[in-house]
Amino acid sequence: MPQRLRVIQLGLGPIGLEAARLTFSRSDLELVGAVDVDPRLGGRDLGDLLEIPDRTGVIVQSDLASALEREGPDIVFQTTGSRLADVMGQIEQVVRHGANLASTTEELFFPHRRHPVEAARIDSLAREQGVSVLGTGVNPGFAMDTLALCLSAVCRRIDSVSIRRVVDAMTRRAPLQRKIGAGLPVEEFRAKVARKELGHVGLVESLDLLAAVLGLVVDEVEETIEPVVATQAIRTSHATVEPGQVAGIHHTALGRSAGSLRISLDLRMYLGAPSPHDEIAIEGDPPIRNRVEGGIAGDAATAAILVNCAGRVVAAPPGLRTIAEVPIITCGT
Amino acid sequence: MPQRLRVIQLGLGPIGLEAARLTFSRSDLELVGAVDVDPRLGGRDLGDLLEIPDRTGVIVQSDLASALEREGPDIVFQTTGSRLADVMGQIEQVVRHGANLASTTEELFFPHRRHPVEAARIDSLAREQGVSVLGTGVNPGFAMDTLALCLSAVCRRIDSVSIRRVVDAMTRRAPLQRKIGAGLPVEEFRAKVARKELGHVGLVESLDLLAAVLGLVVDEVEETIEPVVATQAIRTSHATVEPGQVAGIHHTALGRSAGSLRISLDLRMYLGAPSPHDEIAIEGDPPIRNRVEGGIAGDAATAAILVNCAGRVVAAPPGLRTIAEVPIITCGT
Repeated sequence: MPQRLRVIQLGLGPIGLEAARLTFSRSDLELVGAVDVDPRLGGRDLGDLLEIPDRTGVIVQSDLASALEREGPDIVFQTTGSRLADVMGQIEQVVRHGANLASTTEELFFPHRRHPVEAARIDSLAREQGVSVLGTGVNPGFAMDTLALCLSAVCRRIDSVSIRRVVDAMTRRAPLQRKIGAGLPVEEFRAKVARKELGHVGLVESLDLLAAVLGLVVDEVEETIEPVVATQAIRTSHATVEPGQVAGIHHTALGRSAGSLRISLDLRMYLGAPSPHDEIAIEGDPPIRNRVEGGIAGDAATAAILVNCAGRVVAAPPGLRTIAEVPIITCGT
Repeated sequence: MPQRLRVIQLGLGPIGLEAARLTFSRSDLELVGAVDVDPRLGGRDLGDLLEIPDRTGVIVQSDLASALEREGPDIVFQTTGSRLADVMGQIEQVVRHGANLASTTEELFFPHRRHPVEAARIDSLAREQGVSVLGTGVNPGFAMDTLALCLSAVCRRIDSVSIRRVVDAMTRRAPLQRKIGAGLPVEEFRAKVARKELGHVGLVESLDLLAAVLGLVVDEVEETIEPVVATQAIRTSHATVEPGQVAGIHHTALGRSAGSLRISLDLRMYLGAPSPHDEIAIEGDPPIRNRVEGGIAGDAATAAILVNCAGRVVAAPPGLRTIAEVPIITCGT
């Protein structure tokens, strides 16, 4: 049996904790460390945070540098933020230490168009250190991009791609419910959108990857972010939403070439959304109509794909990689 | 721009011709040769066979060895047979010549369990020669295996996989209509099944790949092949089927572990099958329900994935590869 990969979990929010739980269950991975900046977590056994009866022996550390030094991980799972600007320091620290990195940072999924400077820096640093970095997740990372790439294999020609994702936010974690503005008055929602404090991070990265890999020339990207307004009171364990308040978000990204639509991404995440699903329509030869009934469960699935990609990331050629450059990620590999 | 890959198309049945047509349309590929054993095709310009007005300058050759010698291809697309035993000679010839090979040979898709000797021989020969060999296609190759692998990425755990494919054979080429026994009396269908002259080649290879990659232990594989009987007369451009005659095939492969079902593949291909589709159900955490409405068009899609995989095969590490070992195949790469 090959040696187990030594893993540090960086970030202990809901997805990080789930990834840690999953890592413990894997025979090919060994969770050797857990890091979070929250001082209330430092020094606690992960078993406490996972609400399992046994102590795990993995004690939460607050300092990434000393955790890397002490544990010498093969790979770090990063679940600390959505924006590259917020996590570049951590990424550079991990890579400089010579560890591979798999990250749910949305902007890292395909940073080449919007963040070329950061992408080039990560890539050259990773090559120097002989390690790989991969941005992964479900959205971006799977439902609105990779699954469409996979389906495209059977097409002779692609004219355009339309993807619609409908998520019932009732089933999602508290941070997600806050991210979609649930419970806000409509004006406050719009003000937050204007300040770029609301909106799904990663939709444009999905579009950029699709355009680049499928060779769909896009010269104009248009984003719209609108509130979905509650028509009746909604109570969740995290929030109460009155009629007229915001139940969630309708976020679209449209990619056009000389005015004609090539890529359309339509994301609706709101409390009580009926018939959640993921739908991909490829116009081309042959056309493809694909639907995941019920949709791909966001949080559980994000932790799953993060952990499932570990072996692929470690085996990948050094550098900043995209999902299109590693062998297909599967459950349990 | 990187140099175009030099391609020989080996086999000029319907799928081979379609692959040749597609290769001509690609800027990254150059069709340098076409080979078929049929003496009636030798010496003709491919343009004739493709029914296009222009001469292509690619003249059909009957001898593979001299075509390899003369054209020095980077990769050969092989569409000459379903069974490994029938095409091993060609595979060895291509690999010994130092060319990569992408093949629609159904038994090559995952030969490791059923044909371990041939698999090992191809693998060691390919490593010696520094080239790669990949079995690809739609079924096996995509609809009942690779798409399920792709979907599994978002699962924490998989208990079982059920895949159903329904194909309306009216839309398919003549060889396919013969393969499913369309127009035969039921007794003759059963006799041919008993002699292994009928049945979809590759269903068990799909099952074997799923079991191996997803780690689903299967200790017993059961296949059934039943006729679908026409209830009314069916006329196609290739055949006439009277009521009571065979309209097509219902082929299943079930993989069990200690009696419990882990993988179920259910394939129905018959003339006039209503609501063609491809459906994948993964039982696990989370469960996944995926459906391709209309199904994945068999012939066009097989030619497409064959041509789409060229770059991946050439870039793969030397040896006999499976679809799980190369980066995701996409349209146009």
